[in-house]
Amino acid sequence: MDRGGIGEAIKKLSSRNCDGLYLSDFLLSWEKTDDEIAAVFDVAEILRGLRRNNVSARIFDSGLAISIFRDNSTRTRFSFASASNLLGLALQDLDEGKSQIAHGETVRETANMVSFMAEAIGIRDDMYIGKGNAYMREVSRAVQEGYAAGILERRPTLVNLQCDIDHPTQAMADAMHLIQHFGGAERLRGKKIAMSWAYSPSYGKPLSVPQGVIGLMTRFGMEVVLAHPPGYEVMKETLDVAKQNAAKGGGSFAVTHDMREAFKGADIVYPKSWASYAAMEKRTDLYGKGDMAGIKELEKELLAQNATHKDWECTESLMQGTRDGRALYMHCLPADISGVSCKEGEVAASVFDRYRDLLYREASYKPYVIAAMIFLSKVKQPADRLMRLFTAGRPRVS
Amino acid sequence: MDRGGIGEAIKKLSSRNCDGLYLSDFLLSWEKTDDEIAAVFDVAEILRGLRRNNVSARIFDSGLAISIFRDNSTRTRFSFASASNLLGLALQDLDEGKSQIAHGETVRETANMVSFMAEAIGIRDDMYIGKGNAYMREVSRAVQEGYAAGILERRPTLVNLQCDIDHPTQAMADAMHLIQHFGGAERLRGKKIAMSWAYSPSYGKPLSVPQGVIGLMTRFGMEVVLAHPPGYEVMKETLDVAKQNAAKGGGSFAVTHDMREAFKGADIVYPKSWASYAAMEKRTDLYGKGDMAGIKELEKELLAQNATHKDWECTESLMQGTRDGRALYMHCLPADISGVSCKEGEVAASVFDRYRDLLYREASYKPYVIAAMIFLSKVKQPADRLMRLFTAGRPRVS
Amino acid sequence: MDRGGIGEAIKKLSSRNCDGLYLSDFLLSWEKTDDEIAAVFDVAEILRGLRRNNVSARIFDSGLAISIFRDNSTRTRFSFASASNLLGLALQDLDEGKSQIAHGETVRETANMVSFMAEAIGIRDDMYIGKGNAYMREVSRAVQEGYAAGILERRPTLVNLQCDIDHPTQAMADAMHLIQHFGGAERLRGKKIAMSWAYSPSYGKPLSVPQGVIGLMTRFGMEVVLAHPPGYEVMKETLDVAKQNAAKGGGSFAVTHDMREAFKGADIVYPKSWASYAAMEKRTDLYGKGDMAGIKELEKELLAQNATHKDWECTESLMQGTRDGRALYMHCLPADISGVSCKEGEVAASVFDRYRDLLYREASYKPYVIAAMIFLSKVKQPADRLMRLFTAGRPRVS
Repeated sequence: MDRGGIGEAIKKLSSRNCDGLYLSDFLLSWEKTDDEIAAVFDVAEILRGLRRNNVSARIFDSGLAISIFRDNSTRTRFSFASASNLLGLALQDLDEGKSQIAHGETVRETANMVSFMAEAIGIRDDMYIGKGNAYMREVSRAVQEGYAAGILERRPTLVNLQCDIDHPTQAMADAMHLIQHFGGAERLRGKKIAMSWAYSPSYGKPLSVPQGVIGLMTRFGMEVVLAHPPGYEVMKETLDVAKQNAAKGGGSFAVTHDMREAFKGADIVYPKSWASYAAMEKRTDLYGKGDMAGIKELEKELLAQNATHKDWECTESLMQGTRDGRALYMHCLPADISGVSCKEGEVAASVFDRYRDLLYREASYKPYVIAAMIFLSKVKQPADRLMRLFTAGRPRVS
Repeated sequence: MDRGGIGEAIKKLSSRNCDGLYLSDFLLSWEKTDDEIAAVFDVAEILRGLRRNNVSARIFDSGLAISIFRDNSTRTRFSFASASNLLGLALQDLDEGKSQIAHGETVRETANMVSFMAEAIGIRDDMYIGKGNAYMREVSRAVQEGYAAGILERRPTLVNLQCDIDHPTQAMADAMHLIQHFGGAERLRGKKIAMSWAYSPSYGKPLSVPQGVIGLMTRFGMEVVLAHPPGYEVMKETLDVAKQNAAKGGGSFAVTHDMREAFKGADIVYPKSWASYAAMEKRTDLYGKGDMAGIKELEKELLAQNATHKDWECTESLMQGTRDGRALYMHCLPADISGVSCKEGEVAASVFDRYRDLLYREASYKPYVIAAMIFLSKVKQPADRLMRLFTAGRPRVS
Repeated sequence: MDRGGIGEAIKKLSSRNCDGLYLSDFLLSWEKTDDEIAAVFDVAEILRGLRRNNVSARIFDSGLAISIFRDNSTRTRFSFASASNLLGLALQDLDEGKSQIAHGETVRETANMVSFMAEAIGIRDDMYIGKGNAYMREVSRAVQEGYAAGILERRPTLVNLQCDIDHPTQAMADAMHLIQHFGGAERLRGKKIAMSWAYSPSYGKPLSVPQGVIGLMTRFGMEVVLAHPPGYEVMKETLDVAKQNAAKGGGSFAVTHDMREAFKGADIVYPKSWASYAAMEKRTDLYGKGDMAGIKELEKELLAQNATHKDWECTESLMQGTRDGRALYMHCLPADISGVSCKEGEVAASVFDRYRDLLYREASYKPYVIAAMIFLSKVKQPADRLMRLFTAGRPRVS
């Protein structure tokens, strides 16, 4: 984006009603209005434009960004670190130990104790159904109370870095990729996207990516198809969101058990493995009971179940059936690439190879999406502020 | 604190003689003069005022703050991170492995190797009697020698983030809480504070909090009572400090074995578990001999000993006996709350609940106290410098 | 260095042809021209001068420095952290788990995923022959491709923080120490340096230090002698580099199996333990086969082999044989000091003691050498930029 583009994007942003984002958390994309979602894309694009034009976007002279990762992460961790740094925040990791799920008093207290100088808190908690998003809301309530009581000078903004329900920074980065790739959000109208289950030799991947994708992409008037084998259902709540969004946005939403059907004529395909909701629920119950042997057993069972669906692979033959044989292939990475990262996986190596640059580009939007979420929550008049940054033109590298 | 208050506080600070803090470490509160202690509170309050008025207190454009945690920590870790960041320093953690206690050459060398661009070093080392503070002094000597030899361009400031003897950042934050709560240090004169042992199902908590509290609070003309069951004595050295301070400051210091007696008429109560000095010494000996089985055995013994004092709990009935039944309840957190974080603990849930906001506020002063300690050690004319920050008024968030 | 010295050093720098460093990695010192090597020393000295005169060298307003440590490190970790911070970058550690050696797709992908806002990547990977430097080049190719494809806005600079072949930040810091100690690079001409193997009770130290030292010191017209017992050969490739450099630079390079011979008349001695190339290769093979029992066995064997060379110790008697009995003793630290850090080791305690300050000083150059490498790779006209920093005179501590 050149300097002219930045000015235009700021003008566009100033026409959005995004007051609701100010001082708010970003926990589920479907809690946000269309204008608010569009504002995040605008700000992400503007921040990216500023950086590419070597203009500093530091709005913080000091302040902390807290990260809480209850599951492993490299991509999202670095995206959050990059976003925080871009705005001038120092990252401080709260390492609770992976297996400990704190509740009640501990959450309330810890949330306040780490937040005396915090501006943002990013949380990944995606391992157990019914827990991750609930934990984020517990933290949110805690810092809200601390802020209301005058204990916290500032109300830190929460960003959902993946939970059991949604993965909004991923889905938003995915959508931004589509907007950039197809030349505008309005160009997405009528495009068919196949969010499909795919085989993986690994176990228990979160449901938040497919759920986040169907919950978000249905807003843009797209034909969204969710495909998976029987038994790999996603949470009903997110199906409802997808249906309502499609109805409101003039697109469609359908579920199929046929991968080839889903791919047929698709403009975009997103084949990715996940565990079934029922399995994740069962695992959560076993975890709650401390039945680790049961979890081991369940794992074996699920892997065996997965193995009956090895034909759910994104092959060249399946890609042939997409629009003009060249749908945009998407993935949140890392992908299980057949013959590369595993024997049999989610995608054929030749397909993956052809789309590598585009996949990396897809991922490259996440830092900007996160930075935009923080920015919009912290800055009351975002368009004005961005214009001031732009005209000040303080170099990021000098 | 409004802008007028900041100006007044700076004026007050300029009347203190705090030259002794310049280029010095903060290892034990009782090594500091009354003026120096007061200056730390002043600067902490001013830094807090600046931040609340969105004025940057960055005096460092670059530079590292090194943290060495030889025991787990969340609160103090984040407080040190916050303080460093407020002043413009980047935190770098030196992770030595928890169990390894380095000596001699290694300490001397490592202290210098990590300090080439360090401005401050925060250390927590509280597990073994006779070791923690001694280790800090070893590090201090090492960097002093490195500085004197011209190897280190700057002399990094040491901040004791809890040792076997004192926990000055905690006790100072506690005192700042009292000053703020009661409306001035002079209002503390004559107030009764009960620093009391309390039952906890956990084992081997450091003695540094009670020791730090009696060593500091006796300076303000308060009636300080230390209460504990027989066998839970603290270090004699700190009892002596408390007695001397009380004699000098016009207050009093007494030890009792009766919790109810200590609470009677108290303006402030601080019920908290700790291990006995004798037990900690025994553990240190066993550790020295590498007798891990002996340590396990001792642990069991101590837990059994603790369990004979379950009546040392801060109950509603005990609180009734305090001044007007509503003494200020204090704790360094996390507390062992009966029926919440454990079956039987240090404090009744209803008492804790009533004081939650105040407890969080108590903790909120720690980042500012640490920042003030670093500031005063680094800045030769602190009042002038703070006035320049104040009048420059560079926004922290812009 | 006073302010006048800084101006002169910048002038000297402006006469060097160091265009080849711009946008390049620093992986092996012998890939760089003499002018480029000299430019690194110049910039390191200027950055040090700026800092000692309290002038900020922040050229980055934001941006990340990524560190990847596949082997333990304290010194180099803190040096990289210090260098990054000095220039304004925030450190973000990529913790892959020590034992996992990723290949191919994973390396390519991860390198890009962490680099969206990265300016520099520092890597230590020194455990396996044929692996470390190769891994760095894989990362380098990956980010180059990502940059070429427009995925990465900036091309992050790679800095070799120790590999199987070279340890350029160490060797360069060592050389800078010599330049400072003897009063100029031109004064090194004709000086004899003995890079000698020394006994250590520990096992499998990398070869990169002796290899890096002979590969670099031979450039300055020095008489470089490599001494080790039979069986402790270094990589042939690095012997060839040393020979060629010596031939080109007018100095000499010789290998001997006699420590006393090497020390005789030496101006500088660098006694340090390392594993033999053959042993390291064998270990790499065993590792490749996953033969951990074999590695344990090999370790025992190597320790026994080491133990037959306990006379390879830097004693007072050996030091007596050096020029005027007072050669400059060097070490990359930590040293195995006889009777201090181990029973029998690399160096007598009395020798070490006499040189402690000089050893610490030697180490103190590493942060500046790393900062200079990053600076020269990022700044097209380094002399101009440094002059602007100098004249702007923004205080580092204010």
